[in-house]
Amino acid sequence: MAGKTLQNINLRNIRIHDASWDRYINLVEDVILPFEWKLINDLVPGAEKSYCMQNFRIAAGQETGAHRGMVFQDTDVAKWLEAVGYSLSKKSNARLEAIADEAIDLIAAAQCEDGYLNTYYTIRGEARWKDLFEGHELYTAGHMIEAAAAYYQATGKRKLLDVVCRFADYICTVFGPEEGKLHAYPGHPEIELALIKLYRLTGNAKYLDLAAYFIQIRGEQPCYFSSEENYRNGTFIFPEFKDFTFDYCQADRPLMEQDKAEGHAVRAVYLYSAMADLAFEQEDEKLLEHCRALWENIVQRQMYITGSIGSASYGERFTTDYDLPNSTNYSESCATIGLAMFSNRMFQGTRDGQYMDTVEQALYNTLLAGIALDGQHYFYVNPLELVPEIAENNPTMRHIMTERQQWFGVACCPPNITRTLASIGNYMIAAEGDTCYVNLYLACDVQAPLQSGTLSFTLEADYPASGTIMLCITEAIGASQTLAVRIPAYSRDSYRIRINGKDFLQEPHKGYAYLSREWRVGDQIQLELSVSFRFVYCNPRVRDNLGRVCIMRGPQVYCFEEADNGSYLAACRIDTSQPIREAHSDDLPGGILCAIVEGDKAVYRSDMGALYSGQKPEREPVTLRGVPYSRWNNRGRGEMQVWMRDKYG
Amino acid sequence: MAGKTLQNINLRNIRIHDASWDRYINLVEDVILPFEWKLINDLVPGAEKSYCMQNFRIAAGQETGAHRGMVFQDTDVAKWLEAVGYSLSKKSNARLEAIADEAIDLIAAAQCEDGYLNTYYTIRGEARWKDLFEGHELYTAGHMIEAAAAYYQATGKRKLLDVVCRFADYICTVFGPEEGKLHAYPGHPEIELALIKLYRLTGNAKYLDLAAYFIQIRGEQPCYFSSEENYRNGTFIFPEFKDFTFDYCQADRPLMEQDKAEGHAVRAVYLYSAMADLAFEQEDEKLLEHCRALWENIVQRQMYITGSIGSASYGERFTTDYDLPNSTNYSESCATIGLAMFSNRMFQGTRDGQYMDTVEQALYNTLLAGIALDGQHYFYVNPLELVPEIAENNPTMRHIMTERQQWFGVACCPPNITRTLASIGNYMIAAEGDTCYVNLYLACDVQAPLQSGTLSFTLEADYPASGTIMLCITEAIGASQTLAVRIPAYSRDSYRIRINGKDFLQEPHKGYAYLSREWRVGDQIQLELSVSFRFVYCNPRVRDNLGRVCIMRGPQVYCFEEADNGSYLAACRIDTSQPIREAHSDDLPGGILCAIVEGDKAVYRSDMGALYSGQKPEREPVTLRGVPYSRWNNRGRGEMQVWMRDKYG
Repeated sequence: MAGKTLQNINLRNIRIHDASWDRYINLVEDVILPFEWKLINDLVPGAEKSYCMQNFRIAAGQETGAHRGMVFQDTDVAKWLEAVGYSLSKKSNARLEAIADEAIDLIAAAQCEDGYLNTYYTIRGEARWKDLFEGHELYTAGHMIEAAAAYYQATGKRKLLDVVCRFADYICTVFGPEEGKLHAYPGHPEIELALIKLYRLTGNAKYLDLAAYFIQIRGEQPCYFSSEENYRNGTFIFPEFKDFTFDYCQADRPLMEQDKAEGHAVRAVYLYSAMADLAFEQEDEKLLEHCRALWENIVQRQMYITGSIGSASYGERFTTDYDLPNSTNYSESCATIGLAMFSNRMFQGTRDGQYMDTVEQALYNTLLAGIALDGQHYFYVNPLELVPEIAENNPTMRHIMTERQQWFGVACCPPNITRTLASIGNYMIAAEGDTCYVNLYLACDVQAPLQSGTLSFTLEADYPASGTIMLCITEAIGASQTLAVRIPAYSRDSYRIRINGKDFLQEPHKGYAYLSREWRVGDQIQLELSVSFRFVYCNPRVRDNLGRVCIMRGPQVYCFEEADNGSYLAACRIDTSQPIREAHSDDLPGGILCAIVEGDKAVYRSDMGALYSGQKPEREPVTLRGVPYSRWNNRGRGEMQVWMRDKYG
Repeated sequence: MAGKTLQNINLRNIRIHDASWDRYINLVEDVILPFEWKLINDLVPGAEKSYCMQNFRIAAGQETGAHRGMVFQDTDVAKWLEAVGYSLSKKSNARLEAIADEAIDLIAAAQCEDGYLNTYYTIRGEARWKDLFEGHELYTAGHMIEAAAAYYQATGKRKLLDVVCRFADYICTVFGPEEGKLHAYPGHPEIELALIKLYRLTGNAKYLDLAAYFIQIRGEQPCYFSSEENYRNGTFIFPEFKDFTFDYCQADRPLMEQDKAEGHAVRAVYLYSAMADLAFEQEDEKLLEHCRALWENIVQRQMYITGSIGSASYGERFTTDYDLPNSTNYSESCATIGLAMFSNRMFQGTRDGQYMDTVEQALYNTLLAGIALDGQHYFYVNPLELVPEIAENNPTMRHIMTERQQWFGVACCPPNITRTLASIGNYMIAAEGDTCYVNLYLACDVQAPLQSGTLSFTLEADYPASGTIMLCITEAIGASQTLAVRIPAYSRDSYRIRINGKDFLQEPHKGYAYLSREWRVGDQIQLELSVSFRFVYCNPRVRDNLGRVCIMRGPQVYCFEEADNGSYLAACRIDTSQPIREAHSDDLPGGILCAIVEGDKAVYRSDMGALYSGQKPEREPVTLRGVPYSRWNNRGRGEMQVWMRDKYG
């Protein structure tokens, strides 16, 4: 494997000015973070109460009362702070920073003498670490560590970092291989990747060691969680957990014996992210190979075309290979984010562009579909097919919301989306030695601190509306440096790179064109990707997509909505022998490029009394209009369908 | 409407000797009833404990201990006794009768002084009638009444009938419109149809009045069940009930305002059956019309082609019009039985053959699919599409069993199937004045006690393998009498009736050919129905069946199994431009008529790494073999599919 020299560049060094993404990213600072602050302070009329900050005040002794909300309610504050950190990295904002400092003061005040920090357990006075299966203590700790890292990187302020280091130090005294310590690991992974992040920031190897230990012993049999049953005594924080087997949390077998992604999808990809981090840090080829097998299992057998995962609502989990139902799936926004995290780490460990293809697929489709264009409404669950009347009346789909919701009682997704939007730079650019990887094509200005000196460039693009991406060097040191430009798989057979007007013909390596030279200010690189509309078909093992076709444009998946095509989308078929035409629409803010296709539709007549007859339904021609899946459900409640029947399917 | 003169004829007067049905019906007496007796006495090693008879012994003071099993555990004994009654009607069996008498003695001993009879409430000492929403007291009473009626009609013994009359008399003192009585009704309907049955047997009009009262006040708002909330105090016998709204038990609106079948499917059709009975007894045209509307809503919008109902597992319920998913449905065996009961009663109220078409559809498909050819394994849930690997790994389908089970903790279906098989005669023949309705074509000898005298005949048939049905008069009085012979809708355009070799050409009326004459011994009626294989298509509003086709033969739905066609049935398409050929197979006891069709199948190659690509899967020709749905899953675990993709769909 490649050595552990690749790294993200500081978010401060990436200034995004992308017309399409700025719509969301600017919302983070302007709308979402202030709004979320109000939410976690219970200041939004009509929204479900969060109790987050109230819990911290009670734990800090500033108020009295009971803990309210979920066992992991603290993580909403942590994810908010993490997003604030990323946002401040991008642009300073004194007011936001002042609020965040205030929150951090409160968090510090809520920390116990010994470093422990968790309002649920502190307020309720319940014994710590007795219910690792459900208690989310280490999960919550992990999110707080991630927040501290982001805030420190943005502001240089150590207060929260010191808090989480004390907490992590304490955790290191509780867990570990030594006698007298708990030989245990969390039900919900997250602490592992957080500890590795903390190790990278502080250089304190014990954090890396503990992360490695958590991963190493996970799933040893008999499963640790069985030993907690006496404590739980038949009662459960989450009643449904009583029916869950330990594969739910990837603990039914040692991790190295798990060859398929299994269980709760978010847990799985958070865990695999940490495994990839560990393989990178320890240059552990075998572990990396195992991560690759898990990643391939996901992407080649268990991932929706929208980059989402989790085929079942019950358990919010992976099910089995090629089981990808379009209307009963869970496809949690958080799981897509976790898949992007895992894939990004796999790129870091391998410098292989296929992983960033998946990052792009996840971010350009399900991540953006998770948030409304107003920035204040979110999807938890992301079906690929929705008939509102059925979703509202058939309880098999009771997890499906037919419109985005403002906030949820269990609020993992909205702040997770926020922190991902705020840190999108971490997926865009990476640096290693004198090579700068350009992974995503958001318009931006980049200062890449390479080994021999800073290479700065401006990236101009209206991607994926246009496949033309222009890089212009704005700062260079004259030494030979490399721009590794990702060629997405969909354009692998048809792309063009010109440097200062001259074709660059060298074959890409693992999805990257490596452009090396002594760059000069003003040098121009033009990358032409083929983003035209295309029909995409599914592996025939996926039963639900047999005879169906999907339309894509670049990384964007398209879908069909009732707003454009009327209801009973299922009765429509696309004529795949005819080309997909392009049309512009101003229906949505920023406009959308629509896909226009010809097809037909089974005719229903109101005099059809019987359900079943010997008469095949007649068909009539229709013209259908598709819109990007990322923009669906911005025009009210209605049907939506990604995989359409193929007239020739 | 037609007057209330039509009635079933006593089961004693129908002797079935049908090669195909006898396989199941003989099992009832020879295998199932003795086996069930062992089950309810906990004498079957390896089967889930039932505790049924033990509960009665405890309630009778013959043993001590706690009540075990469900709140409605007594109904297993009741349904067993009811089936014993039907079986004894058919053929005397001293040993079986002695066992039943013993059970009845025990039941009588468990009855309280005031007539109350319910082991759950008696043993636990809990207050009666406080939790009508969940407690199933009236439901259990109803099944005991049905048992008593069947046993009395078979044996003339009054002991159990007296027990249930005392119980019913007591119930009449508890419920009713009078001041001081409970103005309430059961969460699970059943008592209503049982009380009407008891009224018919005893002539005691107060039973009819109470049934009418239960129906009349059902769903009045505010809903009665809301008033029980203080008693329940947030606790539930069935935890999932806390999330159920009152439409679950058809109590969200007055019944006459409910224009669609809604809620728990079994509850619904038991209730509608009682409504149809009441309309019949009271000659209530408006109520009958309402029943017709509900029936049409089911059959024209919410019924599977296999005659099953209940599109969702959660709530085991109806969902919404045209929502008929094939693999996540519930389609409980009991609900199909209830639909047959409701439809049979609608025939009784209207003399319209369409209702018996549905009875036939339900009995010949889902009822028989509910029981294995060995008579000892049962399906609760009857999907139309099964991929075992997915059903076992995707918890959305955790209610699906991939093979029939021996017995269940909640054992409503097996004894319900048993009692239905034992009383199939009640669906076959009905009499009114001098007309004898012949509804189902099981080979049998019938003595029909008509107004002017007995008309007896032998029915010979190998239906539906053959469409030839021969009736031969064996006893006649010389007066003009009518045989009303049902012409199933599928054969309406192509059938032939000959009486003593001469064509009978009169048009049928509402699905019946009325053959009137002074019958003589030896008269022969030959009915030729067109039972050849046919393609059936679904109303295009049913999204899951668009582009799909089903194969039927007479009333039988066919399906495709992995045993004949390999796995990945979903990848197959049928070429509907080619004829369906017929083939005989000895794979299963009794042999089966198979459907042979040509088609093609999407090719999977193991080198297909990616889930998604621009390449449409190739197809290769295949020949497919279908078998009757009623016989599926008798050759081990494997895929099954009813609705197959149509090559031209």
